[in-house]
Amino acid sequence: MLTGDTRAIARAISLIEDEAPAAADVIRAIFPRTGHAYLIGVTGPPGAGKSTLVDRLTAETRAAGETVGVIAVDPTSPFTGGAILGDRLRMQAHAADPDVFIRSMATRGHLGGLARATIDVAAVLDAAGKSLVVIETVGVGQDEVDIVRSADISIVILVPGAGDDVQALKAGIMEIADIFVVNKADRDGADRAVTSIESNLALQAFADGEWRPPIVKTEATTGRGIPELWQTIQRFRTHSAGVHERRLQARNEFRLRELLTERLMDHIEHRVLSPGEFDDLVRRIASREVDPYTAAADVLRRTLNRG
Amino acid sequence: MLTGDTRAIARAISLIEDEAPAAADVIRAIFPRTGHAYLIGVTGPPGAGKSTLVDRLTAETRAAGETVGVIAVDPTSPFTGGAILGDRLRMQAHAADPDVFIRSMATRGHLGGLARATIDVAAVLDAAGKSLVVIETVGVGQDEVDIVRSADISIVILVPGAGDDVQALKAGIMEIADIFVVNKADRDGADRAVTSIESNLALQAFADGEWRPPIVKTEATTGRGIPELWQTIQRFRTHSAGVHERRLQARNEFRLRELLTERLMDHIEHRVLSPGEFDDLVRRIASREVDPYTAAADVLRRTLNRG
Repeated sequence: MLTGDTRAIARAISLIEDEAPAAADVIRAIFPRTGHAYLIGVTGPPGAGKSTLVDRLTAETRAAGETVGVIAVDPTSPFTGGAILGDRLRMQAHAADPDVFIRSMATRGHLGGLARATIDVAAVLDAAGKSLVVIETVGVGQDEVDIVRSADISIVILVPGAGDDVQALKAGIMEIADIFVVNKADRDGADRAVTSIESNLALQAFADGEWRPPIVKTEATTGRGIPELWQTIQRFRTHSAGVHERRLQARNEFRLRELLTERLMDHIEHRVLSPGEFDDLVRRIASREVDPYTAAADVLRRTLNRG
Repeated sequence: MLTGDTRAIARAISLIEDEAPAAADVIRAIFPRTGHAYLIGVTGPPGAGKSTLVDRLTAETRAAGETVGVIAVDPTSPFTGGAILGDRLRMQAHAADPDVFIRSMATRGHLGGLARATIDVAAVLDAAGKSLVVIETVGVGQDEVDIVRSADISIVILVPGAGDDVQALKAGIMEIADIFVVNKADRDGADRAVTSIESNLALQAFADGEWRPPIVKTEATTGRGIPELWQTIQRFRTHSAGVHERRLQARNEFRLRELLTERLMDHIEHRVLSPGEFDDLVRRIASREVDPYTAAADVLRRTLNRG
């Protein structure tokens, strides 16, 4: 895997996705080899053209000599099998290129774990020698924001005319954007979208020398604006070399928190409580025999080492 | 608060939002009085017109004699103060009506807690005698899906022409919808959106007598389709009386899990670890002195009662 073998990478990622016990061993083993890849987070509302833009950006960075891993975090319906289908379609464009690895990660209808798994998969691609890892998320929920925020650079893609522009900007993404992209810039309303972002930025105070998120207009379907986007990413990377430490801290704090809560809940369900006891407790809360705070306090008392 | 006094309700909700210790006491005290309100979850991508639609639905249900609480889960930028502003603007329409209570809940840039807090606020409105509680979320992330899924009925709002319709449907929301709403139905592409949902539904097998999510076309700005939406909600309520138990279970399971993880992390940071130790651990992971799995295992060992 460390030599970049595609099948070995795929196998390591599957272990992480399946939450196999061996996943922890993989991360432990490769961890000292990580920290070299530059992580690019890309988010935006559904329909903003993220996949196409990431494909174009991949081609652009490949031409510049980078090797690329793409993780598409995709809360696809399990029954449509969209993630797998999407992978196949997207892989075709780069099929002949061993230095591009694309993988979709689907939510499994279960909260938590996905964001941490995403960071672990990025670590695998990092250790496997990819110089860039693009993490692409659908949606603008808190999970997505957390995933993108823990990258080295966060790119927020908006699209003209998707309802009310202000609505899109409201969704907690103004603060995380290092670069704004207005995609489908040939559409009506592109300039209005730019103005809307500009006026929102105008509300913020930027210190001297502080990075002010630029707005890049693109047409991912034709490739227009992609070279400019890549230049802007490189400009940010140079500019933010000094504050990069803070991002690393945030990423690793998030990772430790996610890991702790996952392990704790697993311990409670399988070690502290007897089989069926968790469901029984939920039933008793649902029937109002016990309130959730009292129930939680009781489970905590039995879980924690008070010695 | 139990008599429906608006200021008392607001105060109880503020305790929950501020994560005050008294919040647990509030829930403990009111818990036996809850379980009477019908919880309506509404989600959809940004710009779908959710707020306007919920306002119209509120007016419709008021005319039918319901009392209504609205919780708008709004991941607004903290610096724009959007949530508070939004509350004020929206309250005006129902300002003279003591039987409508509207409250926005903003994320505070921190993962977790929001979904659980939302359910607690719904419990307050329930105990305060509201017969309907509408939970409206922006975005289509996992958090939002979890919030909406724990309601008694889940309504997914889509809007024609917001990029690729399939993209919007992909985002994990097909399974949770009990009713689809195509809002802004006067726009081009409304029929295409309906067809797109229909063909997605056609992929699913519905058992005899099983609820097949209907599609309601609305124009929230004019009110067209709102009476039909309200009738469809009532139809679902009657239809699903038998399976309602399952929803209650899901809601309370989610609630117990959220509460446990919050309390456990709080315990670890403030009781198990010494001040500054958590940050120090994160720094050591960031500098690759220790891998996150080893660090988590060490913290867990110190946290758990292995006796």
